[in-house]
Amino acid sequence: MGIVVQKFGGSSVATTEKLKIVCNHITKEFEKGNSVAVIVSAQGKTTDKLITEEREITDSPSKREHDVLVSVGEQITISKLAIMLNDMGYKAISLTGWQIPIITDDHFGNAKIKSIRNETILDLFKEGYIVIIAGFQGINENNEITTLGRGGSDTTAVAIAASLNAEKCDIFTDVDGVFTTDPRIAEKVKKIDLISYDEMLELSSLGAKVLHNRCVEIGKKYNIPIVVKETGKENSTGTIVKNSKKLEDMEISGIAKDDNISRITVMGLENKIGKTYKVFNLLAKHKINVDTIVQSFGESINKNLSFTIKSSDLKETIKILEDNLEYLTAREIIHFDNLSKVSIVGIGMTHRTGIASKMFEALYEENINMHLISTSEIKITVLVNQDEADRAVKAIHKKFFNN
Amino acid sequence: MGIVVQKFGGSSVATTEKLKIVCNHITKEFEKGNSVAVIVSAQGKTTDKLITEEREITDSPSKREHDVLVSVGEQITISKLAIMLNDMGYKAISLTGWQIPIITDDHFGNAKIKSIRNETILDLFKEGYIVIIAGFQGINENNEITTLGRGGSDTTAVAIAASLNAEKCDIFTDVDGVFTTDPRIAEKVKKIDLISYDEMLELSSLGAKVLHNRCVEIGKKYNIPIVVKETGKENSTGTIVKNSKKLEDMEISGIAKDDNISRITVMGLENKIGKTYKVFNLLAKHKINVDTIVQSFGESINKNLSFTIKSSDLKETIKILEDNLEYLTAREIIHFDNLSKVSIVGIGMTHRTGIASKMFEALYEENINMHLISTSEIKITVLVNQDEADRAVKAIHKKFFNN
Repeated sequence: MGIVVQKFGGSSVATTEKLKIVCNHITKEFEKGNSVAVIVSAQGKTTDKLITEEREITDSPSKREHDVLVSVGEQITISKLAIMLNDMGYKAISLTGWQIPIITDDHFGNAKIKSIRNETILDLFKEGYIVIIAGFQGINENNEITTLGRGGSDTTAVAIAASLNAEKCDIFTDVDGVFTTDPRIAEKVKKIDLISYDEMLELSSLGAKVLHNRCVEIGKKYNIPIVVKETGKENSTGTIVKNSKKLEDMEISGIAKDDNISRITVMGLENKIGKTYKVFNLLAKHKINVDTIVQSFGESINKNLSFTIKSSDLKETIKILEDNLEYLTAREIIHFDNLSKVSIVGIGMTHRTGIASKMFEALYEENINMHLISTSEIKITVLVNQDEADRAVKAIHKKFFNN
Repeated sequence: MGIVVQKFGGSSVATTEKLKIVCNHITKEFEKGNSVAVIVSAQGKTTDKLITEEREITDSPSKREHDVLVSVGEQITISKLAIMLNDMGYKAISLTGWQIPIITDDHFGNAKIKSIRNETILDLFKEGYIVIIAGFQGINENNEITTLGRGGSDTTAVAIAASLNAEKCDIFTDVDGVFTTDPRIAEKVKKIDLISYDEMLELSSLGAKVLHNRCVEIGKKYNIPIVVKETGKENSTGTIVKNSKKLEDMEISGIAKDDNISRITVMGLENKIGKTYKVFNLLAKHKINVDTIVQSFGESINKNLSFTIKSSDLKETIKILEDNLEYLTAREIIHFDNLSKVSIVGIGMTHRTGIASKMFEALYEENINMHLISTSEIKITVLVNQDEADRAVKAIHKKFFNN
């Protein structure tokens, strides 16, 4: 029998009643003869409550101490879960981040895992224990508590799975997997049974609600199948994230949407080497996150450079660029606000033709204008007006999935 | 300048407002040029709340996991306090039990400190940090979280003070020190300015509300002055617990009372070596805690053996003894219930005469009968009816302190 890692999020462990459901998932896997490591988040609103209390003190807490504070939520959950399993007659033991230890870098609040010592867990497996591990937390090399940032417990789970060379990592959550698009937008959305790591990463706007990018990256690197399942569902098969030949048979896997996008165009940029670099270097210095970039090279001495940013950065971006028009040797900055990115993702498109035209056809039939087109190996992104974006997703979904 | 250790209990750190008062005490000591280590308990009812939640799961939780759970309260306090001090512009850093580490034995829920590594704290002092330490918690040699039991944070504080060879250990609480007796019983009680470790230990029924015995024992062993002070009072001098020649000038230091005492007499016990041992060995096996013991040796072949126990153990004790009358070669078990122990304590009595007779005079004047008398070097204890105990304390207090 093998090693299985299970992860339960904050809403799955929110109450004593819900912990009982979690115990059932754990013992079911354990009774099959598997060694089981379980990663849990803080219960329900525990972390939010701690942060509210912290805000009573200051709006800018010491980052080191903030991590000491917010890491207690997971410690509460591991002990309660171990208490419950022990009470049910199972051998279960809790481990905090430092007890394993999970070693991270020094970035309090958003630390990256550097290494995981797996001996403690493997020894406990040998003694027949179910091992309950606090997600979201680690220690740096100076023995200081760190936390992993948003989606941190997912990352812990997949990293633990990788360190144990587990068969799979089950991520239990409150939805039954990843869907072809957001069910609140399109009709007849379908659960994706199988998806590749790369597709999952590209579908981040869908996936962020389910899986954090970092955990998918680790899954990809160590080839650990990640299964997204619904905690409340008895025999959920969920969505399996792994690489598979089968995936190439499908046109696309899913459709993602990101709202609140702005497009900036730097007009009349001198068409010389280094000018593009100068623009992005300037923005990076101001910590402006630039997304999709499109540059149309012409024969002329000038060029136009377009890129997208989050709308919340729009004002600052325009100011930075306009203040530096001379330095950049550009003529003018123009922008469009209230845009959305709509993307189709699928590794099947690498060896198929007509995928892009099918997408554009759907938009054409709905009379939706595209402000920008950008493509990668497994993704096609278009920029549309935000007030037309839902209609765009609906039309594309219907074209690919409901015909 | 020296090293000062300060400890703040659960009610002193209960709210953000109260934490500000705590910060004032800390920074005041720090501004004097001292290195300051601060030990804190969990805020207000935090630990009680966690235990209530635990009871939802089971009444008999795994002891190991219970300690993982209840140790989070102190971790919350240290981070908040460090955040507040940082926000005030002071260099402050938090340390959990495992980060120091404080090494304890394996007794989850009631662990004893075996050793404290002081290098981490001393290094932080050198860098100018105020060091905020979680009370009540440690780790065993297997890296498992342990807690120290009732009064554990006081014990942590004095043990840290001992390991740092601190000048003193200030225990901030909600009363302004230790009093000559319980203010709810006697009139005109006085704050004790100075008291020895041994007296403090003997005054446990007063002291238990203020200082736990274990912390006084450690203070005595390493000769660390312990100062009990009121958090809410600006310039509290409190009660200093330390050894001092001055103490010998006083008749007594204080008067203690313990209610709910029962007295057992084993009648007609065979007057042979080993019979007394047999009685107490039997009770120890059943975990009955025996307190004051009085044995009147006679010339006869039988003797009567009296001792006191907590009333809650009375029923079980009688049953154990009566079931073993033959084994003990005793004739009969008699008992008195609803008794109180009243004790006067003072190291002055070792070289003074007339202290006992003064105590008995007070009781005689009040027509209070004594069921048993027991004396040690620095204590005289009498057993009286519980409904006369308060009157006894009042009379003795008046005799010694208000004449």
